[in-house]
Amino acid sequence: TQSTWGSPTTMLPCTAGIRFVLASGSQRRQEIIRKVSNDVVVLVSGFEENLDKSSFSTPTAYAMENAKRKALAVIETEEWTKLNSATKCLLISADTIVVANDGTILEKPSSLDNAKSMLRQLSNSSHTVVTAVYVVTPKATHHSFSEVTTVMFDDLQPEQIDQYVLSGEPNDKAGGYGIQGNGGAFISGIQGCFYNVMGFPINRFCREVTKLHNFQQLV
Amino acid sequence: TQSTWGSPTTMLPCTAGIRFVLASGSQRRQEIIRKVSNDVVVLVSGFEENLDKSSFSTPTAYAMENAKRKALAVIETEEWTKLNSATKCLLISADTIVVANDGTILEKPSSLDNAKSMLRQLSNSSHTVVTAVYVVTPKATHHSFSEVTTVMFDDLQPEQIDQYVLSGEPNDKAGGYGIQGNGGAFISGIQGCFYNVMGFPINRFCREVTKLHNFQQLV
Repeated sequence: TQSTWGSPTTMLPCTAGIRFVLASGSQRRQEIIRKVSNDVVVLVSGFEENLDKSSFSTPTAYAMENAKRKALAVIETEEWTKLNSATKCLLISADTIVVANDGTILEKPSSLDNAKSMLRQLSNSSHTVVTAVYVVTPKATHHSFSEVTTVMFDDLQPEQIDQYVLSGEPNDKAGGYGIQGNGGAFISGIQGCFYNVMGFPINRFCREVTKLHNFQQLV
Repeated sequence: TQSTWGSPTTMLPCTAGIRFVLASGSQRRQEIIRKVSNDVVVLVSGFEENLDKSSFSTPTAYAMENAKRKALAVIETEEWTKLNSATKCLLISADTIVVANDGTILEKPSSLDNAKSMLRQLSNSSHTVVTAVYVVTPKATHHSFSEVTTVMFDDLQPEQIDQYVLSGEPNDKAGGYGIQGNGGAFISGIQGCFYNVMGFPINRFCREVTKLHNFQQLV
């Protein structure tokens, strides 16, 4: 379902000639960003994601701090300095969390039982997915935003949960499901951006970058 | 992003032992249905999709008639009789249309210019995507339903439309865009089922089949 691009191309005209540097090892995020550019490189952040969730006033504040720290960790590296001096680079980092309807933050499940308990919690109710994004422009402007999508889950039968967890798909996914995978069949509807649920709000990103361009904060 | 299944498996327990027969050559629909079952075969319908849109009272009625005719054309074939006598089969056909906010039905673009004009029409507004589904159960019950999703499109710049149309992605897609492809970057949000926009409302399908099962109309 991905188009292949030829030479450096962008569907976001104001970023022509700018290389996107993604501070995330997530294959999903890379795929999503490639919808608008084929000049994308990955510099995985060394940030350890060990912040104390309870010290933040909101789930979004927690996700935002994660995204910021991932970006700042990359900016300090030699690889970034090297890349950034060779060509104009836009650094992009992101953190996605699932927030259950009681306000609990669900990240990647720690075990099969944990995944089952997350899915039982999400079943027959709606929750939100928040992705916080932090960007650093070639002009060294720091900018951040977050996007929220509401996801409505079907009433899952215990055997559906068991079968889904056994498939292994929940393992590396916040909230224990992948909307882009077989987990998509559990979802009766969403309100907002699908790609935000997958891990990166690509349309909002395009609008934010265009805003930066219009205010001459991009290059 | 697709899990691989082993032996015949379903995430929809009431369809265990039932083979899904898809009356559509669409690779996208097949992928979506494979989220819930690995026992899927394709019998492309010979129906020509040449109905007169203006003779229907609503866009949904038009899509529904298309879905019904595709299914009925398959049921008359020898291949179906053979398949259906070897194992319990659930026939599935579907038709997806894009309805612009003035009520115009947009199908696959007929040319690059037609694709551009569709995208200009969708730009900076919301439209709906309707998928009509027609199923025939192993018990020979005929059942149909339709699902609607609202899609919000960004304000597209002419050069974004040009670039997107040149990529070739719009060619085989109703409304001239693919939400699952690079076109996904143009969409600020949806209300409803993402997979319905891609071509098959998988969650609604699961709920409808479960209802048929509960009313003993499935097998």
